[in-house]
Amino acid sequence: MHPLVAGLDMTGTLVFAMSGAARGVQERMDVFGVLVLAYVTAVSGGILRDVMIGAVPPESVASWHNLALALAGGLFVFACFGLFRRLSHPVLFFDAIGLGVFAVAGTQKALDYGINWPMAAILGMVSAIGGGMVRDVLTMRVPTVLHADIYAVAALAGALVVVAGAALGIAQPLAAWSGLALCVFLRMMAIYRGWRLPAAR
Amino acid sequence: MHPLVAGLDMTGTLVFAMSGAARGVQERMDVFGVLVLAYVTAVSGGILRDVMIGAVPPESVASWHNLALALAGGLFVFACFGLFRRLSHPVLFFDAIGLGVFAVAGTQKALDYGINWPMAAILGMVSAIGGGMVRDVLTMRVPTVLHADIYAVAALAGALVVVAGAALGIAQPLAAWSGLALCVFLRMMAIYRGWRLPAAR
Amino acid sequence: MHPLVAGLDMTGTLVFAMSGAARGVQERMDVFGVLVLAYVTAVSGGILRDVMIGAVPPESVASWHNLALALAGGLFVFACFGLFRRLSHPVLFFDAIGLGVFAVAGTQKALDYGINWPMAAILGMVSAIGGGMVRDVLTMRVPTVLHADIYAVAALAGALVVVAGAALGIAQPLAAWSGLALCVFLRMMAIYRGWRLPAAR
Repeated sequence: MHPLVAGLDMTGTLVFAMSGAARGVQERMDVFGVLVLAYVTAVSGGILRDVMIGAVPPESVASWHNLALALAGGLFVFACFGLFRRLSHPVLFFDAIGLGVFAVAGTQKALDYGINWPMAAILGMVSAIGGGMVRDVLTMRVPTVLHADIYAVAALAGALVVVAGAALGIAQPLAAWSGLALCVFLRMMAIYRGWRLPAAR
Repeated sequence: MHPLVAGLDMTGTLVFAMSGAARGVQERMDVFGVLVLAYVTAVSGGILRDVMIGAVPPESVASWHNLALALAGGLFVFACFGLFRRLSHPVLFFDAIGLGVFAVAGTQKALDYGINWPMAAILGMVSAIGGGMVRDVLTMRVPTVLHADIYAVAALAGALVVVAGAALGIAQPLAAWSGLALCVFLRMMAIYRGWRLPAAR
Repeated sequence: MHPLVAGLDMTGTLVFAMSGAARGVQERMDVFGVLVLAYVTAVSGGILRDVMIGAVPPESVASWHNLALALAGGLFVFACFGLFRRLSHPVLFFDAIGLGVFAVAGTQKALDYGINWPMAAILGMVSAIGGGMVRDVLTMRVPTVLHADIYAVAALAGALVVVAGAALGIAQPLAAWSGLALCVFLRMMAIYRGWRLPAAR
């Protein structure tokens, strides 16, 4: 992996772990529950993808790096929840980056494993939103991605750029960076401009 | 697959997707959430089965056909929810057929992968009821199959006919059609005659 | 497997099935729902582990023995719920043993499949607590392991003893029995002495 991509991927894992830990703190869990939730939020999406494409053991099981990152993020939030909350704006921004990196990298991995392009895009999206869905289910909430402002859609848009790039023979890094940029852009518009999809009447 | 079986399988996917989409509309999700729920309801059971028998990537990941069917069913329900509700009786009937087809085909696939017969029947049932369970969990309800009138039991009965047929050396199509018929019959009796299992005091 | 270990493993499956069945009875499910919940509680942890380490089909799918045990435990609780409740103290003790055996055996299996030691311990813990988490999610509760007194921690402690033993070259049975003993001890202290972890303020 390109060092910059690896850095962004680690950022994503860290930020997703923090979002899981924050939920655990809000639910008044003990430190262990907080760490479990941090870890599950950070790695479930990637594990789901890997199990479905046959990349077993999944990346997050074959190596302990994501575990270490998730524990670090989780402990920080547990110990410094006040500070974490004051950082909520930068966290939203890094969360958007994590979303985009997971979607783009997940799509590329699925394509590398020979998955057809529509399903590769879906698996990229699953990589990006799966962890948050598991976090929500474990804390008894309807997954926010099913309700909320553009979130899964941003991940899917980034994933689709990657498959379009692969189909059109565009250089992989260019497609990946474009997909990431589109995902972050859509997410920021959703947060600051209130962009939304139509809901059922 | 026999064209008629393929057609019934597509019917099942479509109807299961509609049941997921209907839940999404009731929960006032946006169009994207409705489609995600439609897709998840249609394919989770089969994916669970395939991951457990080692058929990776699962059928619904290796091909995009079920995705297309689920999106079509989901969009129809999102756009024409009123019409869909007026069709509730035919939908219940097609749902019973989907249940039976998924149970029968799932059991046969597990047997083809060398799974012992009690677990093949269980996996057939999982194929049939797994999607609905995931739909219910994602929308914060105790899965109706754990509570309601004969539903999982009908799927299991159909699955058991298939394993009995395999054990007794009965021609596969005969066993499959008998299993499907038994499942649909039990489901219809549960709906129209109120057949139930004993509950705990 | 050593006959004593096999016996303890069966005890764990049986006790975990009973805890699932008891939840089903409390939720007033019918007999089928009770049995499904018993089965799911008993085997989900091991299935999750096996799918993640690539041991497919998972132990509980490749053989029907755990199915039979879970059905026996589930039927007993459904039929004799009053008697089961009066046994709640011995059940807590056997549950602690099941927890320890699953954690220890799950860790060893992950190590046997070449998983690195931190993740092997995590997978051992997942083997032990996964079933209860699925039971809780299916009945709409925040998994008790995320909240409650030392439970997952006891499983993790037992798992860590196994990986430490492997790293230090200690004889496998000695490490396994030590891990089991530590897990049961911590669990008993949590129950009878109220040992807890710090919670977030």
